[in-house]
Amino acid sequence: MDHVVVMAGGSGTRFWPESRLRRSKQFLNLTGQGPMIRETIRRLFPLLRKETVWVVAGEKDAPHLSPRALGIPSRNVLLEPEGRNTAPAVALAVAHIVRRDPGAVIAATPSDHAVADERSFRAVLRDGLRVAGKTGRFVTLGIPPGYPATGYGYIERGTPFGDGGKAVYNVRRFTEKPALAAARRFVKSGRYLWNSGIFLFRADTFQDRLSRFLPEVRAELESAFRSFGKNGFRGNLRAAYRRMPSISIDYGILEKESGILVIPSDFGWSDLGTWRSLHEFLGKPGENVTFGNVILSDCRNTFVRSDRGIIAAVGMEDVVVVRSGDAVLICPKSRSEEVKRIAEAVRKKNPDLA
Amino acid sequence: MDHVVVMAGGSGTRFWPESRLRRSKQFLNLTGQGPMIRETIRRLFPLLRKETVWVVAGEKDAPHLSPRALGIPSRNVLLEPEGRNTAPAVALAVAHIVRRDPGAVIAATPSDHAVADERSFRAVLRDGLRVAGKTGRFVTLGIPPGYPATGYGYIERGTPFGDGGKAVYNVRRFTEKPALAAARRFVKSGRYLWNSGIFLFRADTFQDRLSRFLPEVRAELESAFRSFGKNGFRGNLRAAYRRMPSISIDYGILEKESGILVIPSDFGWSDLGTWRSLHEFLGKPGENVTFGNVILSDCRNTFVRSDRGIIAAVGMEDVVVVRSGDAVLICPKSRSEEVKRIAEAVRKKNPDLA
Repeated sequence: MDHVVVMAGGSGTRFWPESRLRRSKQFLNLTGQGPMIRETIRRLFPLLRKETVWVVAGEKDAPHLSPRALGIPSRNVLLEPEGRNTAPAVALAVAHIVRRDPGAVIAATPSDHAVADERSFRAVLRDGLRVAGKTGRFVTLGIPPGYPATGYGYIERGTPFGDGGKAVYNVRRFTEKPALAAARRFVKSGRYLWNSGIFLFRADTFQDRLSRFLPEVRAELESAFRSFGKNGFRGNLRAAYRRMPSISIDYGILEKESGILVIPSDFGWSDLGTWRSLHEFLGKPGENVTFGNVILSDCRNTFVRSDRGIIAAVGMEDVVVVRSGDAVLICPKSRSEEVKRIAEAVRKKNPDLA
Repeated sequence: MDHVVVMAGGSGTRFWPESRLRRSKQFLNLTGQGPMIRETIRRLFPLLRKETVWVVAGEKDAPHLSPRALGIPSRNVLLEPEGRNTAPAVALAVAHIVRRDPGAVIAATPSDHAVADERSFRAVLRDGLRVAGKTGRFVTLGIPPGYPATGYGYIERGTPFGDGGKAVYNVRRFTEKPALAAARRFVKSGRYLWNSGIFLFRADTFQDRLSRFLPEVRAELESAFRSFGKNGFRGNLRAAYRRMPSISIDYGILEKESGILVIPSDFGWSDLGTWRSLHEFLGKPGENVTFGNVILSDCRNTFVRSDRGIIAAVGMEDVVVVRSGDAVLICPKSRSEEVKRIAEAVRKKNPDLA
């Protein structure tokens, strides 16, 4: 059966002051549609039954993880005792899933990305699950790059794979965030795709590779799961997490695996990495995008968001202005990446506002 | 005896969101020293006894006019039933003053200007009172212009006046806010001074000119003052104000008067007309000026003011950012004049935030 694991353990400060230490990006309503994680799940439903949608997140985020609000059974919300990056998170979800469905085919997806064309997204997800199920290989979804982004990972595709039906390619190489010159070459070549961070696999393949590449993770989880359904389970899981390495699925498994496939697909994807990319996802070039009570006079290409009171701007261009609670941020759109740094400065000065 | 009348009836929106419909500029602590009106009075005290300092303001502003906070007797706080511009305001104060001191020499001053060099200010005020008392003429204080401002009124000085002691000149002409080309000519000529809005006169001169140029104001006030000290006075004054014209002292008296004198004096004066001029009064060119909890990263020549919470700005230049209560303003320093317009837009949309 097809399953989706929504990885919601991340934390981050690039959306400060909207994101805070206790309110990570995936729980924010950035697009105006609803919290990112809820949108991530909602767009799956036409494809999947709610019993096959799983969320892995940190215990500290439990207040944001009402199963009712997410629309999934409460047993499908899996809480990690502490964050250990994505490899243990996915491994935990797989351990849960195989107890119910040993033949599961699974898509693992970030919880904080945006998709403009949901129909295309579901079509490629369905294809990917089919290919992963049939071949037993890891399958990734690649996005034709719209511009030479330096903030994304790239996948270089190699030769076409298989019977020439839907376009599936062998992966030649993963490249982490490149320098601008390299990014330009990538885009020009036509062979590179943005890494959407979504990957699909059969549960048995995953368990096999976990044993091979991350045996300590596999062993710790197996040991904890021996007490599954008993009183000691949470404690044993906590002990297992304390001992497990913190490692991403990319470094821990995908980079060591051969025979990975990629399906190129354009479904209006954005990782919404910064206020700037949110602005670009929501508005046409040059447009002002506002949320809340905002008055603009002679402004251009601004993103202004107010969660209360009013923000009035005169004659501003290319800036981000965000008020959330008791904090206000102003920066040029082009410097959205630096919000992370300013959030750290705020943390030092006013921990309660960080 | 020397008296000072502090004119505090003004309203304005150029300091929105700090200034509001119910909190005019003169009651704001813009410089960090205290409310403008309190500073205006404080800087007089080394020169005058508190019984000779008078405030004229609107009834609606009574909550901001604690005599204790202002440091003057409560009978010296004169409340106008409604605003009728400066001519009736000064006339009301003079009517009160002559009851106690028929030989009074009076300086009338705005309540919302800034003075950097208080010692020079008091010296020229003392000289001005002496000249006004001796000559029976109206005396104005003129500021050597630092740059071709288009937001100020100008005084053209004529020939020197009198015995060649302190520099006193005949006024040749008053010019309201000039266009930039004219302002440049004025500055270049060396004969023009900024009009500080402070003027000095003998009470008997004032009463005489009031009778001559604004007889209806004089008559209404005299009629009301017949009941002074009795129960009916407030009601009679209210009725008088309803019938009086709304007219400034400049248009109503000074422009009709001949023989006005001007004393040029450089006491670091600013009318603090906009956020920009406040910034320039407080900081050196290019400097950031901040109030409250503010974090700046790589900013230049900004004015950032927060009355609560925190404002964080990255990479901004030449902007004003002000948070006051539930409202936030952002605009380029060069467009501070437009704050007035935005405040009006806010008034239409959210009267409670205007």
